[in-house]
Amino acid sequence: MANIQQIAKKAGVSVATVSRVLNNATLVSPKTRSKVEEAIKELNYEPSMLGRNLRNSESRLILVLLPSISNPFYTEIINGIQNTAIASDYNILLCETDSKPERENIYFNMVKNKLADGVISMDPTVNMQKLNELAEKHPVILCSEYEKGGSIPYVTVDSELAAYQAVKHLIRLGNERIALISSDEKFLYARQRREGYERALREFQLPIRKEWIYHTKALDFQHGVHAMRMLLQLEEKPTAVFAVSDTLAIGALKAINMYANTEEQIAVVGFDNISFSSMTNPTLTTVSQPMYDMGKIAAEMLLSRLKGEKVENIVLEHELIIRESTIG
Amino acid sequence: MANIQQIAKKAGVSVATVSRVLNNATLVSPKTRSKVEEAIKELNYEPSMLGRNLRNSESRLILVLLPSISNPFYTEIINGIQNTAIASDYNILLCETDSKPERENIYFNMVKNKLADGVISMDPTVNMQKLNELAEKHPVILCSEYEKGGSIPYVTVDSELAAYQAVKHLIRLGNERIALISSDEKFLYARQRREGYERALREFQLPIRKEWIYHTKALDFQHGVHAMRMLLQLEEKPTAVFAVSDTLAIGALKAINMYANTEEQIAVVGFDNISFSSMTNPTLTTVSQPMYDMGKIAAEMLLSRLKGEKVENIVLEHELIIRESTIG
Repeated sequence: MANIQQIAKKAGVSVATVSRVLNNATLVSPKTRSKVEEAIKELNYEPSMLGRNLRNSESRLILVLLPSISNPFYTEIINGIQNTAIASDYNILLCETDSKPERENIYFNMVKNKLADGVISMDPTVNMQKLNELAEKHPVILCSEYEKGGSIPYVTVDSELAAYQAVKHLIRLGNERIALISSDEKFLYARQRREGYERALREFQLPIRKEWIYHTKALDFQHGVHAMRMLLQLEEKPTAVFAVSDTLAIGALKAINMYANTEEQIAVVGFDNISFSSMTNPTLTTVSQPMYDMGKIAAEMLLSRLKGEKVENIVLEHELIIRESTIG
Repeated sequence: MANIQQIAKKAGVSVATVSRVLNNATLVSPKTRSKVEEAIKELNYEPSMLGRNLRNSESRLILVLLPSISNPFYTEIINGIQNTAIASDYNILLCETDSKPERENIYFNMVKNKLADGVISMDPTVNMQKLNELAEKHPVILCSEYEKGGSIPYVTVDSELAAYQAVKHLIRLGNERIALISSDEKFLYARQRREGYERALREFQLPIRKEWIYHTKALDFQHGVHAMRMLLQLEEKPTAVFAVSDTLAIGALKAINMYANTEEQIAVVGFDNISFSSMTNPTLTTVSQPMYDMGKIAAEMLLSRLKGEKVENIVLEHELIIRESTIG
């Protein structure tokens, strides 16, 4: 393959000029630029971007950490991140950590080694200590999940308030025995949504009962099926359920279909408004998070940080979408 | 920051030895290695992976092209690719092309510029001419979608046979008016599944009618809803539907729930066996593709190509999963 010296010779310019053309520097006349570009074409020269990035010391890659791509909640957020990043000439690298710390290390090392310029983390299982260390030297943004009182900028929704409103909706429909299907409380969102659930119950002097709070190991549909099945086996069954994700809520609907008596009308509310939530039978009442906007804003915040600008934390509006699962 | 010379001095070894340790070469005694590693730790040295890769001329990154992460079909395949790649110390970069050629170019350039070592393409909208050009110089594997008679190695299933069997299942249940909900026939899988559909109908001397073949613009649920709604408005309505993806089939189930008379029992078969397909009401009969294995094998094929080995095309077994949507 041709090298930069041969291009310079062919174009009749200096190596420095070829380099300026390759790096899109402005100090090159249009005529000179076209001479160099022609030489590049004729000699079939492929500049090594690895070498170029080493000099520019930017990779134009953004890492997006997520626990698993199988939760459709992330899909729309990623679209928002991706469109915003690409518009600014950045590519994104989706990193599924699968909640495994050794994978996290690989990705953090990519940033330390300048193979990527910054990180947007949506991973609630991320090692916050390591992420904070990384954030001291490199741009990092938290999206959706965040650290209360932490120093890394975030964009999120008010999970406590959203859960409170969702449960209040169930109470207004006349439900007094309301269950919670939640995930592991090591996640901030799970703690906050439980707090909102409890606040609504307390406000209406309704019982908060341990056996009506079910913690699942993961967010897959099957865990929602199992949780609901357990709740249906209680002596005093709940008449309504609030689940902390649509995937769990859809599993709960399935279990109600399969195992509940037909005269038992159990209302269900989910969280996220994933596209499948309007395809279920009954369709699912859920809290809609502005997922695309959340991704877009996370990307904009990271782009600002890459320019060295300061950014503020942002809490976006949510919305309760009422569908058949709470109409009966 | 410390450089490699300072590490060598601190550890009392040559720069070449430090380099051998950094590159995991085998000709270093455990004692020397631990001396170097200690020096690296004490001096807080971060080797520039960019520089190391430049010398090794490998990035240890694999690009995975897919049209959209919103189709859950890809999720399991990606898990198979990812686990296999990571076990061999490669990371994967998920590239959503969104069927936009300019994004494709960005990703192809990454390979040409040695920022990535190879490509697994699952994108049916990929520009095959450009991909073939890339494959002349770089390892490329096609996964799921492939080019008939092309030169790029692939792993896939027999879409024609699977569709033929799915439609035969509907015929055996007594259906004579069977519709097809397909996507754009620019995609090989769509053409092959239509061929299988027609073969089954011909074999049983059943009519192949234009108005029973509906082509959607995309694979989202909503397109399935719309397609089924159109089919339900025909004077001579089909009694069964074969859809070329589960997303379309789930949309069709929704439309049947919403718009069909309750006495109309319309059987539905999908394709892919995505995790949602057992959550619908009724649950969906579908063709199961070995998605995880397909991803695993695609990654193994690429790893072989990266070592310069030749690989053979592979066609994996599929399976018809019979559920409530064809039991009624």
